[in-house]
Amino acid sequence: MAKDFSTREENYSQWYNDIVIKADLAENSAVRGCMVIKPYGYAIWEKMQAALDKMFKDTGHSNAYFPIFIPKSFFSKEASHVEGFAKECAIVTHYRLKNSPDGKGVVVDETAKLEEELIVRPTSETIIWDSYRNWIQSYRDLPILINQWANVVRWEMRTRLFLRTAEFLWQEGHTAHATKEEAIEETEKMLDIYAEFSEKFMALPVIKGIKSENERFAGALETYCVEALMQDGKALQAGTSHFLGQNFAKAFDVKFATKEGNLDYVWATSWGVSTRLIGALVMAHSDDNGLVLPPKLAPIQVVIIPIYKNAEQLQEISQKAILIKKEIEKLGISVKYDDRDTYKPGWKFSEYEFKGVPVRIAIGPRDLEQGTVEVARRDTLEKAIYQQTDIGHKIENLLSQIQENLYEKALSFREISTHTVNTWEEFKNIIDNKSGFISAHWDGTKETEEAIKNETKATIRCIPLNNPKEEGNCVYSGKPSIQRVLFARAY
Amino acid sequence: MAKDFSTREENYSQWYNDIVIKADLAENSAVRGCMVIKPYGYAIWEKMQAALDKMFKDTGHSNAYFPIFIPKSFFSKEASHVEGFAKECAIVTHYRLKNSPDGKGVVVDETAKLEEELIVRPTSETIIWDSYRNWIQSYRDLPILINQWANVVRWEMRTRLFLRTAEFLWQEGHTAHATKEEAIEETEKMLDIYAEFSEKFMALPVIKGIKSENERFAGALETYCVEALMQDGKALQAGTSHFLGQNFAKAFDVKFATKEGNLDYVWATSWGVSTRLIGALVMAHSDDNGLVLPPKLAPIQVVIIPIYKNAEQLQEISQKAILIKKEIEKLGISVKYDDRDTYKPGWKFSEYEFKGVPVRIAIGPRDLEQGTVEVARRDTLEKAIYQQTDIGHKIENLLSQIQENLYEKALSFREISTHTVNTWEEFKNIIDNKSGFISAHWDGTKETEEAIKNETKATIRCIPLNNPKEEGNCVYSGKPSIQRVLFARAY
Repeated sequence: MAKDFSTREENYSQWYNDIVIKADLAENSAVRGCMVIKPYGYAIWEKMQAALDKMFKDTGHSNAYFPIFIPKSFFSKEASHVEGFAKECAIVTHYRLKNSPDGKGVVVDETAKLEEELIVRPTSETIIWDSYRNWIQSYRDLPILINQWANVVRWEMRTRLFLRTAEFLWQEGHTAHATKEEAIEETEKMLDIYAEFSEKFMALPVIKGIKSENERFAGALETYCVEALMQDGKALQAGTSHFLGQNFAKAFDVKFATKEGNLDYVWATSWGVSTRLIGALVMAHSDDNGLVLPPKLAPIQVVIIPIYKNAEQLQEISQKAILIKKEIEKLGISVKYDDRDTYKPGWKFSEYEFKGVPVRIAIGPRDLEQGTVEVARRDTLEKAIYQQTDIGHKIENLLSQIQENLYEKALSFREISTHTVNTWEEFKNIIDNKSGFISAHWDGTKETEEAIKNETKATIRCIPLNNPKEEGNCVYSGKPSIQRVLFARAY
Repeated sequence: MAKDFSTREENYSQWYNDIVIKADLAENSAVRGCMVIKPYGYAIWEKMQAALDKMFKDTGHSNAYFPIFIPKSFFSKEASHVEGFAKECAIVTHYRLKNSPDGKGVVVDETAKLEEELIVRPTSETIIWDSYRNWIQSYRDLPILINQWANVVRWEMRTRLFLRTAEFLWQEGHTAHATKEEAIEETEKMLDIYAEFSEKFMALPVIKGIKSENERFAGALETYCVEALMQDGKALQAGTSHFLGQNFAKAFDVKFATKEGNLDYVWATSWGVSTRLIGALVMAHSDDNGLVLPPKLAPIQVVIIPIYKNAEQLQEISQKAILIKKEIEKLGISVKYDDRDTYKPGWKFSEYEFKGVPVRIAIGPRDLEQGTVEVARRDTLEKAIYQQTDIGHKIENLLSQIQENLYEKALSFREISTHTVNTWEEFKNIIDNKSGFISAHWDGTKETEEAIKNETKATIRCIPLNNPKEEGNCVYSGKPSIQRVLFARAY
């Protein structure tokens, strides 16, 4: 199995696609740009959901559900929102089919035309703020801290599994606050949650920062983001948190009676991550042997494979293997015992290696005699012989080590791939030959940002939070600059 | 609060709507027929999801995700499917908006018309079987046991919150099997799961049965269902499980190599329940004081309310209340301590009563002295004084009793509301005056079924499983009948 797919060196993009397809994570469907998330891929999403959902609830948020359709006119209500969104989207114009007059199949019933077209949500600020208007009268109704797990549709022309698809799954938080300060605090709190999730669960170090005006969410006053680096040196945005000011409250006329008895517009935030993170996870850790998953998000954390010559041996080994499985499972670790007789151990080894199962335990007749097992870790491909005694805790420790090692490896990679650059020559040289993050001075203008993008395809990924103020000259225009920002080509 | 809503007697339909709206479960949105599920209502759905998802996984099923859009032509592939579905649905015809020439808002860009229209899924058999074709080559690839949690859209003209909405949330299982027997076994297994879920979690007794041909799912060979009775004597279908035979495999050309080396079409099932169950839950148990929730699905199982005159008293009571809260929570019970100073105890009492919180604990200065609390149960509205000793287990027992009592009450109601009827006069009399289930002989023809429906609005809810064979004469036509079936008016 390991032979018929591309290496990172040969073709990084093909390598990514091969892993997604051949590890059974997802595939394209009959509908252009829409993917099917297969059970193994969906199980990763379920683990991501569970971790994030807990973090949201622990910080006082509740889930709710808003309609998938948004009346077309809603998008025009917030002027900058409609500019940034709602152009490439799925538009529902009719609500009935009828039998085709020629007797072949069905056709749209033209008499069933909607008075106002409906847009399949690309994001839900507008429909949600239209509801919040009726929920909020006074400061006592605030804050509203709501999250939604949902599908959204953006009619992307060039799609890639997980990374950019017409339909994707995500969560979108939408909160309403009495004061600007509280809304900004919420925006930053959710950014911290995304950073913590990336680092602790995905084993993916991120840079927290804010977007330049150009890259800001349509309708936001400030967009905060976490940015990660993939193995090909391209950046990937792993979550955004928006401070929306009073823009949506004004667009949808959401006012509240303050404690002091005045009427004021409500302050808003929104924040989201999507199934795109599965793409990031694949690209961050996997290698030329296939998928590598951090233990905390692996659907199967440990696989046990029996090595045997005949049915009698299998039976003996199975007895022991099942005891070992139970001992490990007691610690809350998911274990699969694969005793299928239709496949040989070697085939199984490469299957689970390809699918990124963090730990493989093999057990054969000699292990039975000697009270041992062979343990292989997916991240380093190292093997070791373990005594069976206290195997549960040994495996638990190993999983922690793997989780930690993947993070450290990704962090080292990011460190050697982050370049401090002072001249335009250096900038272009790095972008063309090494890629990675480039820390460089920028004059703060849209014009320079766009000129750099046009010449190099690199964009400003973020202005890191707590960025040291450092005077210098813009790497492109030579004009004065007050700080370095992070550039990269990005997914 | 309890005064401004309808009683069941006055107006059952208005009573239902008042509870849904005023208990903050859901509301209508700006999009015709689409509801907003508010946090309290969504928390009930999350509890339902968690229980069902565990039951699905315990029986070997995995979750996956398929596209929301289905190419129009897919519906024509399975002839009876298109007849039963796909007529009233949301149709996507365009994929881009543009700025309006008059400068006001956005309009559909007519140049961005899809070659083939896309239907927002009303159910996913077609798109899923189109995918399964590539997943299944041999008997080794079977069974496929997949479930999907998703939103679906059916363009209903007359909608009611939860019971009938244009968009709703559901789960849809889609399985593929090598043999007819295995597929039927799966269909029945999932019906059993729905029945178990209804009875154990929703405290709602159900009749398991099969649908008449008329009421069968479009494309199924047999539709199994669970039917429950609401307090107004109308039935509600609380889940369906379909044996699809080889219909979808033939329509989408899904063949597999059998163990014996032949090629055969794959056997299919599908099964689903939706947010409609929240409507059933409301209607089954609630009373003229508001919502009544079975403890296993209540977002808040216990609320503690302090009774105090001043801040000092509140502080003393809070100390004790928090200890009690912790003791109860240790047993996995969700407890809310409402010490808000902005509302009086009486207001809080009716608030939580209205919202159906199963157990209310009040604690005041005298309770502190005497080591007691006042405990009120929502189902019977009875109050009792409990000693604080071992309060956790006492409350745990009380919650079990409430769960059991709600089930028994619903079961008794169904029993007295099920009428065995032998003449057409009796039939009409019951339907008009008592309603409920009517067990009557039927000649087995579509014509009679439709005549009865036209005259009385009653439909055949199901032919109960393990129905005793009993010869008789059709209550309507007088023709010979081999068994009684269950009629009712239904939601």
